[in-house]
Amino acid sequence: MTLAPDLAARLVDIDDAADPRIADYLDIRERDLVARSGFIAEGTVVLDHLLRSERFRPTSLFLLKSRVAGIADRLALVPHDVPIFAAERAVMDTVAGFAIHRGVLAHAVDRNARQRAGESAKDGGETAELAEFLARSRRAGAPLVVAIGLANHDNVGALFRNAAAFGASGLLLDGASCHPLYRKAIRVSVGTALTLPFHHGADVQAIWKALERSGHRPIALSPRGTVDLAELKPGEGLALLLGSEGRGLPESLLAQTETARIAMAPGIDSLNVATSAAIVLSRLYSAA
Amino acid sequence: MTLAPDLAARLVDIDDAADPRIADYLDIRERDLVARSGFIAEGTVVLDHLLRSERFRPTSLFLLKSRVAGIADRLALVPHDVPIFAAERAVMDTVAGFAIHRGVLAHAVDRNARQRAGESAKDGGETAELAEFLARSRRAGAPLVVAIGLANHDNVGALFRNAAAFGASGLLLDGASCHPLYRKAIRVSVGTALTLPFHHGADVQAIWKALERSGHRPIALSPRGTVDLAELKPGEGLALLLGSEGRGLPESLLAQTETARIAMAPGIDSLNVATSAAIVLSRLYSAA
Repeated sequence: MTLAPDLAARLVDIDDAADPRIADYLDIRERDLVARSGFIAEGTVVLDHLLRSERFRPTSLFLLKSRVAGIADRLALVPHDVPIFAAERAVMDTVAGFAIHRGVLAHAVDRNARQRAGESAKDGGETAELAEFLARSRRAGAPLVVAIGLANHDNVGALFRNAAAFGASGLLLDGASCHPLYRKAIRVSVGTALTLPFHHGADVQAIWKALERSGHRPIALSPRGTVDLAELKPGEGLALLLGSEGRGLPESLLAQTETARIAMAPGIDSLNVATSAAIVLSRLYSAA
Repeated sequence: MTLAPDLAARLVDIDDAADPRIADYLDIRERDLVARSGFIAEGTVVLDHLLRSERFRPTSLFLLKSRVAGIADRLALVPHDVPIFAAERAVMDTVAGFAIHRGVLAHAVDRNARQRAGESAKDGGETAELAEFLARSRRAGAPLVVAIGLANHDNVGALFRNAAAFGASGLLLDGASCHPLYRKAIRVSVGTALTLPFHHGADVQAIWKALERSGHRPIALSPRGTVDLAELKPGEGLALLLGSEGRGLPESLLAQTETARIAMAPGIDSLNVATSAAIVLSRLYSAA
């Protein structure tokens, strides 16, 4: 396939795995990156989300040469100051440290990383950031998903995917939860981690207080919950609290929160956490 | 911890990875087994399901010595003609070919494997077996889950888990779907692949005809479905047809089947297949 001349002119050929221009892609499996220093987006679906994300922007793309022609339409949407590197498979796999089947990688950063870092350094910066996130969620009216101690990358990714599918206003993750920008979490989220608003890193007590202040109605999902799902109504600022599958939510949190449970067959007392969220959010979405 | 004398007497010490008595556990990661020749169950939760399964029975257990005392109650439920092998970690990991973190393995077989094989050899044996499976499902009254071309082990395992959680009557998988007794599928099913009735291996046309004969009402889940989930009623022999995430259900099947869709936010058109099933089955379960 012949490339359009302007696309062909933009491609930067990489034929040496040690080329410093693609250092951001070195050993990406081992070196999971987080928001401030940048992160890796993988595959065309995730790239699509990255290109329309308000919060994140690509700093470069790194493509398998054989994939370029097939995604030319997408590449036309990549801002002109973003370099597009292209290599043969052997070079790409050597750089990444494993076989990149999809052949489409991007390195990206948070547009506001410097500003955010500055805010956090100031006294109360983090609290203000959390309050602002929650105020936006409350205005959006849709349910907010809150993850406590969710360390599994797959679960966090799936939670994003399901929250986005049912129009949640965002995802609030405590500091004990996996960061949504881990490569695997982004991939399992099908890119929604880059477009659904999220906040990561606050502790449980700070989250609880901030939810009270922002006028959310916290509902903790628990096998021992008391509220029937059918009683939950959308549009009232519901904040759905989810714990990890093994440990569940902290007892101290359950003691001070309304709790809801999903009716299940006798003898069964748990579902995957992202599946549980999907069931609740789907009901709220259909009832809206 | 001291073991009860009768349990201590039952344990068969294995100190050589080449011991022929534990040949069933050799290289279990590489060598995924299927029903007739036996399969591997891993972890205490799966073992619990195996011990109460009507269809499957353990032929032996293989445990890490350090785990024995902690699961003595369970081991008391293991039939007396089933040997319990025990080894130190180095021996166990060498046998299995990778690190068995849980330290609890069982080898199991289908109680009726010989009879089933005989039936299949006879003309029409497979058809009769499928018809019998569907008749039992229809009598149970609860929804049946039907998977077509679901090749992913995780998805098949999760589908079992969700089907069991919401009281489905069973799971019918075509021959293009992953076999439920693959080690990873069993593990992700949290053992329910050993207790929820299933049938694997028929082709799509045979499944369709058999569903008609058994008086099920097939409903295909599809992003382009027409029936609203709220219109589905439990107890009428619903058979929920699910395809793989990428390809979906065959067009020929969709053309002749009622189709239902899950309402989702604009721009989103798919969910994980097991998650979709959980949403539908949860609604039907709550409405029953």
